[in-house]
Amino acid sequence: MHATEVFGQFAARYHRTELPETVIHHAKRAVIDWYAALFPGLGAAPLAQLEQVLAEDLDRGSCRLGNGRMATARAAALFNGSAAHAAEVDDSFRDAMYHPGAATIAAALAASQQAGARGLDFLRAVVLGYEVSTRIGVTLGRAHYRFWHNTGTVGVFGAAAAAGYALRLDAGQFAHALATAATFSAGLQQAFRMDSMSKPLHAGRAAEAGLLAAQLAHQGVTGSLDVLDGELGLGRAVSDGPDWSDIGATLGSDFHITRLTFKNHVGCGHAFAAIDAALALRSQHALRADDICSVAVATYGPALDIACYTDPATENEARFSLRFVVATALVHGSVRLSAYTPERLADPAVRAMLERVQVAVDPQIDRAFPGKRSARVEIVTRDGRCHGWFQPDRKGDPELPLSDGELEDKFIELAAPVAGEGRARQLLSNIWELERAGCLAGLAA
Amino acid sequence: MHATEVFGQFAARYHRTELPETVIHHAKRAVIDWYAALFPGLGAAPLAQLEQVLAEDLDRGSCRLGNGRMATARAAALFNGSAAHAAEVDDSFRDAMYHPGAATIAAALAASQQAGARGLDFLRAVVLGYEVSTRIGVTLGRAHYRFWHNTGTVGVFGAAAAAGYALRLDAGQFAHALATAATFSAGLQQAFRMDSMSKPLHAGRAAEAGLLAAQLAHQGVTGSLDVLDGELGLGRAVSDGPDWSDIGATLGSDFHITRLTFKNHVGCGHAFAAIDAALALRSQHALRADDICSVAVATYGPALDIACYTDPATENEARFSLRFVVATALVHGSVRLSAYTPERLADPAVRAMLERVQVAVDPQIDRAFPGKRSARVEIVTRDGRCHGWFQPDRKGDPELPLSDGELEDKFIELAAPVAGEGRARQLLSNIWELERAGCLAGLAA
Repeated sequence: MHATEVFGQFAARYHRTELPETVIHHAKRAVIDWYAALFPGLGAAPLAQLEQVLAEDLDRGSCRLGNGRMATARAAALFNGSAAHAAEVDDSFRDAMYHPGAATIAAALAASQQAGARGLDFLRAVVLGYEVSTRIGVTLGRAHYRFWHNTGTVGVFGAAAAAGYALRLDAGQFAHALATAATFSAGLQQAFRMDSMSKPLHAGRAAEAGLLAAQLAHQGVTGSLDVLDGELGLGRAVSDGPDWSDIGATLGSDFHITRLTFKNHVGCGHAFAAIDAALALRSQHALRADDICSVAVATYGPALDIACYTDPATENEARFSLRFVVATALVHGSVRLSAYTPERLADPAVRAMLERVQVAVDPQIDRAFPGKRSARVEIVTRDGRCHGWFQPDRKGDPELPLSDGELEDKFIELAAPVAGEGRARQLLSNIWELERAGCLAGLAA
Repeated sequence: MHATEVFGQFAARYHRTELPETVIHHAKRAVIDWYAALFPGLGAAPLAQLEQVLAEDLDRGSCRLGNGRMATARAAALFNGSAAHAAEVDDSFRDAMYHPGAATIAAALAASQQAGARGLDFLRAVVLGYEVSTRIGVTLGRAHYRFWHNTGTVGVFGAAAAAGYALRLDAGQFAHALATAATFSAGLQQAFRMDSMSKPLHAGRAAEAGLLAAQLAHQGVTGSLDVLDGELGLGRAVSDGPDWSDIGATLGSDFHITRLTFKNHVGCGHAFAAIDAALALRSQHALRADDICSVAVATYGPALDIACYTDPATENEARFSLRFVVATALVHGSVRLSAYTPERLADPAVRAMLERVQVAVDPQIDRAFPGKRSARVEIVTRDGRCHGWFQPDRKGDPELPLSDGELEDKFIELAAPVAGEGRARQLLSNIWELERAGCLAGLAA
């Protein structure tokens, strides 16, 4: 049986099974975190431009952009998927090197709004999208992550599976939706190794592609069921020919959606263990910026490949500069949206600190990637003392999760400046009640 | 200078230069052949399904589907790009292993209709799309063609360049349009190694992706300009790290659009030299099916990789069965649309002949691929004689081109059953006059 068919059979069983209450709870946490990422993304590039381009598809249809404007389903998926990834605060599933929420929830929402779904069914669509796509991402493995941006390439499966649930695809249709999504899969890492606006579009295109694949399968369009594991399939084309035989092993028993990472800082998540370590040292030793002579960061290879800018000139580059975010943490005590304003980009204190930060790969930490995202920071102070901290996990990882309260605080901090605090709190309350909602009118997007 | 920038600078110069009359003539031939492919594609899978899925985008907008229905620009690009590849009779640029027309002309048409362009500007958009995308396809080379379907992956550049011309992008915007298109690039060969409906969708998605990339660049969206030739760029991700340094060498002097292959049979073009050889032997020796004991076909490797079905059960499989199309040619004397009807799929004479056809790779012929698409056929007859024929090029290749009259015959044969002969002849006449048309109202789609 091909991997697409394994998922198809699971999806057919899934229609008829109830979900554990804790899984529903985690699905709501994922939706809260998705909105926390969506709101600041609405104002980031390239969303204003995308809204212009989508003019033909707006102020009509049964779906909504994150800013409340009506839209066709595919336009809403494209826009909201992009917006939810644009501020770089969206969730991730660590072992898949993948931000599952952006595309999956955008497509789940568009397909569910179009279908007039209940709240619970929307949440169930989200769960299914996470379960299918994270397993495909895990299987594609680290070799895939060399050239490809999983949030685009793997995101299509999250979107197709979630939309497939909303459309009530049968086992065969669901397998064909994934097969069609696979051959729409795209997104290169090079697209954000130079300052550009491409990265959020990967998530938006994945949401739209997965939705389209599910809609086509619903109409009877077939794909190649061996497109993942076949001789020339995705596994060989974009990775090192991984083993698909266990793809369904834990489906329905181990719910990946319960093991998400929610970002506790703003920026590239690969830098977060280093930020946590720097903040721990800062707090523990009451360090002031002026005290610090040198900062040595050791972490895993892809963190330096991706958070690679040594002297960032733009907001985007700063988000992907491990040196910049560690320097910001040490100078200002946090790395939030305000870390990337023009003033802060030019801040002499941050720039001076950045000069003192050295980064390197630690082979032992690197070997534990992607399962562990660790960093070690050593700080030498002017009085000649050396302070070290090893951060095994990031705050926000499943081992050090954000509590519901911390997640709410993150949501309000990011949503309120855009939506207003009253509307943000109402939305939060509506999401916590979502499994009992008869429709999705209580959602903002 | 990155490859995207080389093309951007060429595009900016191209706005201000006239095209040789012969290039305009070849552009009109490409448009005629595109419509010849479009009409039979309208009735093929998965176009009816796609039309259902696009319901939100139809009966509005300023563009048209091939069946005349109004549509938004992106929906028209997606639908027409898919339709033009669905019947497998669209053009190719041999050295790029690529069908340039399907996506390029679909996007050129959508963007030109939306912009209210004149006929000449539409033709100029088509030319630019062919020139840019065929060069990228040639550079990606044979290594790319192992896993990827160039009509999808390379098609995005044809569409982006053509739409970029219609939108009058400046040098920088044009480069960014290509950069964004690159990271939308998708389409796996595995998607048609099993009977499926994915293949035409690759061309449609490419048309839509390239159009979107150009529209985004027009609004100021930037991509990574090093996304083709960078360390993790498309050239390394999907090929063997090709050399991009000559990418602009012949731009503006050697017009690739003058060297297209137009299909003279219906089906996978990799089988055509073998069909030509079989038809030559059949005619030269007045062979009847009953006379034939055995047929040995020798050709290049990818022909057998792609036209791979040994015992085709469906229309799609038959189109990609070298054995089937050679058997059909020998029994019926031609391989046209009628070759793939259910009756012909089950035809005992074809099935009996198919059993007698052996296929193999000839190393010398294989080494000349993709520049040459040759085949050798040897037929042993019941009276013990052996007849051989080496076909160096395919009828329809630049070395053996269809005359304008032969192209018109192909167009009428394929368009008239769908559009009616009167409308088909009117459209043909309108295309031949296109460079003098003040608008695109004379085009059917």
